Amino acid sequence: MSASRGSPAELVEAARAGDRRSLARLLSSVERGGPEAREVASLLFDAAGSGYTVGLTGAPGAGKSTLVSALTGLLRSGGDEPRVAVLAVDPSSPFSGGAILGDRVRMGEHALDPGVYIRSMATRGHLGGLALAVPEAVRVLDALGFPWILLETVGVGQVEVDVAGAADTTVVVVNPGWGDAVQANKAGLMEIADIFVINKADRGGVRQTRHDLKAMLSLAASDDDGGWSPPIVATEAETGKGVDELVEALDAHRRHLEEGGRLEARRAAQRRREFHAVVVERLRARAIAKYGEQATAELADAVAAREVDPYVAADRLLGPD
Amino acid sequence: MSASRGSPAELVEAARAGDRRSLARLLSSVERGGPEAREVASLLFDAAGSGYTVGLTGAPGAGKSTLVSALTGLLRSGGDEPRVAVLAVDPSSPFSGGAILGDRVRMGEHALDPGVYIRSMATRGHLGGLALAVPEAVRVLDALGFPWILLETVGVGQVEVDVAGAADTTVVVVNPGWGDAVQANKAGLMEIADIFVINKADRGGVRQTRHDLKAMLSLAASDDDGGWSPPIVATEAETGKGVDELVEALDAHRRHLEEGGRLEARRAAQRRREFHAVVVERLRARAIAKYGEQATAELADAVAAREVDPYVAADRLLGPD
Repeated sequence: MSASRGSPAELVEAARAGDRRSLARLLSSVERGGPEAREVASLLFDAAGSGYTVGLTGAPGAGKSTLVSALTGLLRSGGDEPRVAVLAVDPSSPFSGGAILGDRVRMGEHALDPGVYIRSMATRGHLGGLALAVPEAVRVLDALGFPWILLETVGVGQVEVDVAGAADTTVVVVNPGWGDAVQANKAGLMEIADIFVINKADRGGVRQTRHDLKAMLSLAASDDDGGWSPPIVATEAETGKGVDELVEALDAHRRHLEEGGRLEARRAAQRRREFHAVVVERLRARAIAKYGEQATAELADAVAAREVDPYVAADRLLGPD
Repeated sequence: MSASRGSPAELVEAARAGDRRSLARLLSSVERGGPEAREVASLLFDAAGSGYTVGLTGAPGAGKSTLVSALTGLLRSGGDEPRVAVLAVDPSSPFSGGAILGDRVRMGEHALDPGVYIRSMATRGHLGGLALAVPEAVRVLDALGFPWILLETVGVGQVEVDVAGAADTTVVVVNPGWGDAVQANKAGLMEIADIFVINKADRGGVRQTRHDLKAMLSLAASDDDGGWSPPIVATEAETGKGVDELVEALDAHRRHLEEGGRLEARRAAQRRREFHAVVVERLRARAIAKYGEQATAELADAVAAREVDPYVAADRLLGPD
C-alpha cells in the first residue's frame, strides 16, 4: 500500500508487481509533466518496445468507445488472455479543466476484469503537454508489460492527429452515410489511416461509404506505405459483428510492419517527434523562469490595454533578437 | 498592379484603396509569420477595433459553410450593404501541407460579389502559428474596414477552441438528433457558446436537442457572462430559414457586450493571449537559431535510434536548467 506513495523507481517496481495504484500514479506523473515525469520516462525508456499500440480515431459520435470495448473483449479472449490497456484521450473544456468521462461507462463490462486497465487523459488546456504526455503514457504501459495498448482519440484537429502518431497501427472509424468519408478526408485522417472501420454498419449506406473511402484513398495514395493498402472493415460494435475481421486486419498490418523493419522505422520517427516536443516544452519553462511572472504580467496588461502591440511587447520582454 | 508586390506599408495602402490582391498578400504574410507578419501587425494594430467578428464553430458536417453563406447574404442585404469578410480555418493534413478547400465552393454565390471577401487558412502543421495567425488575420480585415468578419472553424479540439477566442460572438452549430449536444459539450463548446444554432432543423428532433442544450447550459452556467443566457436558434441554412433569427440574436449579443464595457474586456483578454503566443513563438525561433539545425538533428537521430531518451537528449542540447 505504501508503495503507491513512493519514488518513481519504487512506483515502477510496485506497478511491475501488479499494483494498479502505483501504475495510476506513474501515469498521473506523466500527465502532469515536470521532473517526476522525466524520471519516469528515463526509468522506462529501455524496457518499452514489446507492446503493440493500436490508435482508434474518428469524429465524435462515431462509436469509438463501443468499438474499443468490443475489441478489448475479443483481444482478451485470445490464446493466453493477454492484458489490454485502454488509454482514452478526451477533449475537455478549456475552462473547467476536467476530463468529461462521458462514455467511459461503456467500458463498464471490462471494469472488473483484472486483465484490463482503463485510463482517461484530459487535454486540460495544455496541448503541448498532451502531445508529450500521450506517447509517454503509452511507453509506461508498454514497459510495464501490456502486450496490447488501445489509444482512443477524437480525430478532428491537428493535435489529435499528432497523438494518433503514437500508435503502431491507426484505425480510422467512420459511420455509413453520405459525407462521413469526405469529413474524414478534410480532417486529415486519410493519410494516417492504416485500417478503416465503418461502424454502425447496420444503418445502411455501407457500400457508398466504402466506395467514397476507396476513391479518396486512391487520391491520397503515397509511396512510403511499403505497399500497404488500408483495408475497410464494416462493424456493428454494439453487437460485436465484424470485430473479428478488425482483429484480422490488425494482425495483418502488424505483420506487414514487422517485415523489413517498418515497425522500428515508425517508432523511430515517433521518438524523434517526442524529442522535439520535449525541447520546446523545456524552452517554455525556462522562459517563464528567466523573465519572471511579474514582468510578463505587466507587459500582457499593456497589450490588453492597447498601449503596445504584441510584437513590440515581446521585444521588450525578451530583448532584441 | 505593382502595388501587390510592395512593402507591407505599400500593401496596406493599396488594400485600403480596395486592391484585393494586396489584401491577399497581407493575409499571406500573416499566415507565414516572421518579420513581415510582425510589420503588418504593427502597422494595423491601432486601426483595428471597429469591425465585429462572429465565430462559427461545430463538428464537421454540421453545415457551417452553408450557414456562413446564408448569413453573408443576409448581412449584405442590410441597410448600407456592409462588406463581409469570411475567414475559413480548415483542418488539413499534416502530410500534404495544403488546405483542402472542400466546401468553399458553397460560397460560390458570393464569389462575384465585390462586397464579400473569402479566404481559407490552413493549419499546415503549425498549430502555434495558427493560434497566432488567425487573430492577426482578423485584425487585418478589421483594420481594412470590414464591418463584419465571419470566422469559420471546426469545433473539436483545443486549438479550434483557441481560434474561436478571436471572435466577439461565438456561434456553436449543432444538428438535431440524439447525441449532438452531448458531443458539443464533450468538445468543450458549451462554455464558449454565446449563441447556439440547431442547423438542418428540417430533420426533426429539434425539440429534444434544444432540451439537451438547455440542460447542459444549466450545468455549465458561469457567473462571468454578465447575465447573458445563450439563445438557441433553429435554422435550415440550405433554404435560409431561421437565419434572420440568427442575425437578431447576433445583434442582441453585440448590444449586450457593448453595455458596460464587456466587448472591450473580451478583446483585451484576446490581446493578452496573443502576446503570450508571440512570446512562445519567438523563443522557439531563437532556440533553433541558437542551437543550430545540425546539433538538433544529430540528437534527434540518437533518440530515434534509442541510444538516449528524449529528456536526456534535451539536456544535452540545451544544457542543464
